[in-house]
Amino acid sequence: MSPTKRVPAPRLPRRSTLLLKDNWYVGAWSAELEPGATLARRICDQALVLFRTETGAVAALEDRCIHRGMPLSQGGECEGEIIRCPYHGLEFNAQGMCTKIPGQAQIPAAARVISFPVIERDAMIWVWVGAADRADPERVPSYPYHRDPAWVWTYDTLEVKAGWLLLTDNLLDLSHLQYVHRRTIGGDPLEDGRAQLSATRDGDRVFVARWLLDMAAPPFHKQMCGFAGNIDRWQEIEFRTGLIQFYSGATDANSGARQGRRDGGMHLRHLHCITPETETRTRYLFSVARNFRVDDAALTRRLQQLALATFREDQALLEVQQRRLAEDPNRALLDTCNDIGTVHARRIVAERVTEQGRRIEQTR
Amino acid sequence: MSPTKRVPAPRLPRRSTLLLKDNWYVGAWSAELEPGATLARRICDQALVLFRTETGAVAALEDRCIHRGMPLSQGGECEGEIIRCPYHGLEFNAQGMCTKIPGQAQIPAAARVISFPVIERDAMIWVWVGAADRADPERVPSYPYHRDPAWVWTYDTLEVKAGWLLLTDNLLDLSHLQYVHRRTIGGDPLEDGRAQLSATRDGDRVFVARWLLDMAAPPFHKQMCGFAGNIDRWQEIEFRTGLIQFYSGATDANSGARQGRRDGGMHLRHLHCITPETETRTRYLFSVARNFRVDDAALTRRLQQLALATFREDQALLEVQQRRLAEDPNRALLDTCNDIGTVHARRIVAERVTEQGRRIEQTR
Amino acid sequence: MSPTKRVPAPRLPRRSTLLLKDNWYVGAWSAELEPGATLARRICDQALVLFRTETGAVAALEDRCIHRGMPLSQGGECEGEIIRCPYHGLEFNAQGMCTKIPGQAQIPAAARVISFPVIERDAMIWVWVGAADRADPERVPSYPYHRDPAWVWTYDTLEVKAGWLLLTDNLLDLSHLQYVHRRTIGGDPLEDGRAQLSATRDGDRVFVARWLLDMAAPPFHKQMCGFAGNIDRWQEIEFRTGLIQFYSGATDANSGARQGRRDGGMHLRHLHCITPETETRTRYLFSVARNFRVDDAALTRRLQQLALATFREDQALLEVQQRRLAEDPNRALLDTCNDIGTVHARRIVAERVTEQGRRIEQTR
Repeated sequence: MSPTKRVPAPRLPRRSTLLLKDNWYVGAWSAELEPGATLARRICDQALVLFRTETGAVAALEDRCIHRGMPLSQGGECEGEIIRCPYHGLEFNAQGMCTKIPGQAQIPAAARVISFPVIERDAMIWVWVGAADRADPERVPSYPYHRDPAWVWTYDTLEVKAGWLLLTDNLLDLSHLQYVHRRTIGGDPLEDGRAQLSATRDGDRVFVARWLLDMAAPPFHKQMCGFAGNIDRWQEIEFRTGLIQFYSGATDANSGARQGRRDGGMHLRHLHCITPETETRTRYLFSVARNFRVDDAALTRRLQQLALATFREDQALLEVQQRRLAEDPNRALLDTCNDIGTVHARRIVAERVTEQGRRIEQTR
Repeated sequence: MSPTKRVPAPRLPRRSTLLLKDNWYVGAWSAELEPGATLARRICDQALVLFRTETGAVAALEDRCIHRGMPLSQGGECEGEIIRCPYHGLEFNAQGMCTKIPGQAQIPAAARVISFPVIERDAMIWVWVGAADRADPERVPSYPYHRDPAWVWTYDTLEVKAGWLLLTDNLLDLSHLQYVHRRTIGGDPLEDGRAQLSATRDGDRVFVARWLLDMAAPPFHKQMCGFAGNIDRWQEIEFRTGLIQFYSGATDANSGARQGRRDGGMHLRHLHCITPETETRTRYLFSVARNFRVDDAALTRRLQQLALATFREDQALLEVQQRRLAEDPNRALLDTCNDIGTVHARRIVAERVTEQGRRIEQTR
Repeated sequence: MSPTKRVPAPRLPRRSTLLLKDNWYVGAWSAELEPGATLARRICDQALVLFRTETGAVAALEDRCIHRGMPLSQGGECEGEIIRCPYHGLEFNAQGMCTKIPGQAQIPAAARVISFPVIERDAMIWVWVGAADRADPERVPSYPYHRDPAWVWTYDTLEVKAGWLLLTDNLLDLSHLQYVHRRTIGGDPLEDGRAQLSATRDGDRVFVARWLLDMAAPPFHKQMCGFAGNIDRWQEIEFRTGLIQFYSGATDANSGARQGRRDGGMHLRHLHCITPETETRTRYLFSVARNFRVDDAALTRRLQQLALATFREDQALLEVQQRRLAEDPNRALLDTCNDIGTVHARRIVAERVTEQGRRIEQTR
């Protein structure tokens, strides 16, 4: 890329801890929530209990009984279509309505726990903790690689003691690979000097592409897909708030991948769900999907372990970074040429948080 | 009880963390403090060192040396009638007067540590950390079951990371038994639908009674006292700030227990001393006394273990509840019909804390 | 000393936590920093990375990369004359100038990390985190016992969770020896009643002397230097901010030590470097030097272990004291006759902190 034109420093709030409530976030993997199970979650500082009723519906209620404030998730039982408070046995349905107060015949109409919009799609449970009237189900992203039988996928979760935007920054600036992930995936020949980097914004999304053309296939690629000669490699990243899709692939060199002919070769789809728990804590749910050697269970396990080992390297680093930034959160940072995607993403978050703040002001 | 008349929501401060300093609290069991021993305690956020001198007197001093602020309890030694600071050896008597400064012949008159009123009664050490001129020894409750030879008793202590009023709430609303204590005492047939509940306030005390008449004797009761047929059961609770007395008993059904004829049968006296350490931490000292099978040491142990196991179930729950309530301490809660005692108790605490605040204002 | 004249309570701020940035502090022992090594340090709340380049120069930079705030010490590598950020590989030289941004040809002139004055002298690395224009190298104290071949010395470090002035107080008032160090060095016959204590201030230094004349030699002294009869003992303490020198010695009684004739006998030089990390945490680096039995390695080890055991006794106490004082930091304390050195030292700190504050005000 051109080294002569420096990306201007964006005029955005620098705090890494902006919470955007008006957004769909992944609260859990569907598989984490069997019928009758409950889960404690926190999204944008809202304490939640998720539970799945006998008929399979998923509910998200405030995790606080109306009677004495007890978290329903701490020993509360889901039975039939209700969840029961572990303290005095009050019961609530999936809509948060109180359906039983032991020893009391009449239940006041006001006796309800706040319920939050939930959508289960593509093996993920999406929750909305913002203004209820803005929870548009159409805005829940579709992710075909979790449902398309041509693809096999695996997943895991990390709880990271760092603000969610630090995870976003991390994933949008891949120049960290060779430093942070040297011992896992990063002995990576996508060397920064050669990589062709571009970033564009489209509405509330950012697209970053990194290309390396006509390079020797690294051992990982040879082993995966048996490349014989040189390859063309790409990493395409699609950012939206709380979600980053990552398309990493390679084909034989000069077979036209960059012009759109990407048949054959290696294709990996990484999903990164970045769910802010608090200003300084993030639930990070990630999956890896592939459409080759789909019956190779050992490979599935290996990819899962590799992803986990890699993201744990990020986690260790981000938690240290978080503590340092928290000492002086408003101090300026310096963007480099590798931050062209980061800068767009930060700007989108700042815009949406500003809008959200304006709406809250108006409804007061 | 009538399900049609809901208890009105009390107009009281809802914070679970009101500290009432003008009150006698149990700081320790007498048995914890041998002559020459010291104990670190905290009551209503006042750090204390308790010690018992050679002649048996118990003293409560501020746990902070006048010289360099060292806590006297942290390695300080009680010798004869004084306690010696572990740092530079200053000595203080039970009244807090400095009696020695090593290397210095004259001791300034102002050289004294604050001392607090202490009363030892019925095997408990009561301490007053409020306004000294209000420390009326007559207000220390009498508890005959700790001194009457017809009764045998056992005791224990828990340090609970929850505000003291959450413990009060817990003990005054027994509808939690069948949910929280299902695996210990709570597989209890005092089912809420059948229990007859009443609560009255008398000055600064609240009395709650729960009756279950003509019911089958549960296994515990049969085993304890050999009931053959049905029984009448009661739980009578007497609340005052910092102390809850609990009388649990049973006689043969229809033998007139509710009318006052309670001879024979089973009688258990539980004492619950609820000593606020800070706004969010409570020292919970409890005893169980009985007047049957008084020589059965195995039974004493068993009752002690059962009480401890039961209150640990409460502890786990209350600590979770405390953290949730602390996130938004002023938010409203909903009282149920089971809170008739709780509501009285909260009102008494609110009144006394308000009075205390008014007195503090006036003396400024 | 005369018990009739009480030392007046000083009119100084009582907070134990005044941070004096305009001062040279020992950040590390030279031996801790091999070429190519990095160390994380904090001095007066300034996070630092120390590193030693290939050519042996020591640098102290702010421990925060300009790009994303990552601490350079957390996995950053020192290579040649630069340190490399562990996250995206930015490089900085010993002056803090950015010398490489991977993937970017031009490096903005503003791209630099703050660097701090460093001086290596007498096996210690001294750092200045205050106003750079006031960092006078001439004010770094000289300590010959670390470089004079007639002396042998050993050292260690403790991280103490207490404010730095509590350590100063501790070392200037030795009346704590017989209480705190009873089980290590303190079965000490320098009993307070007999010790002759004096303290003088000279500019920014305080000198405290404690003499005990014509006393029986304690076992430690006999074993060390084979005293046959009575001895004269002294402890001379020189305080300056952040550094306390301690000269402990003994000669045969009546051989004129107090008049200046100190040949022969036992001579120990203790250095106490007291480096404030935060208001409530201190790095405590200490050394013990002697000029007798200099080839006795077992004795060296023994003295090192004795010093460590002794200062750990202080540490335990100071950490408890810190927590108690922090509950009410502005409350008055009572000085005793043993605080004559302490009072001078506190006044010097208060004066210098006040001056520092005035300068900061003026530059605003």
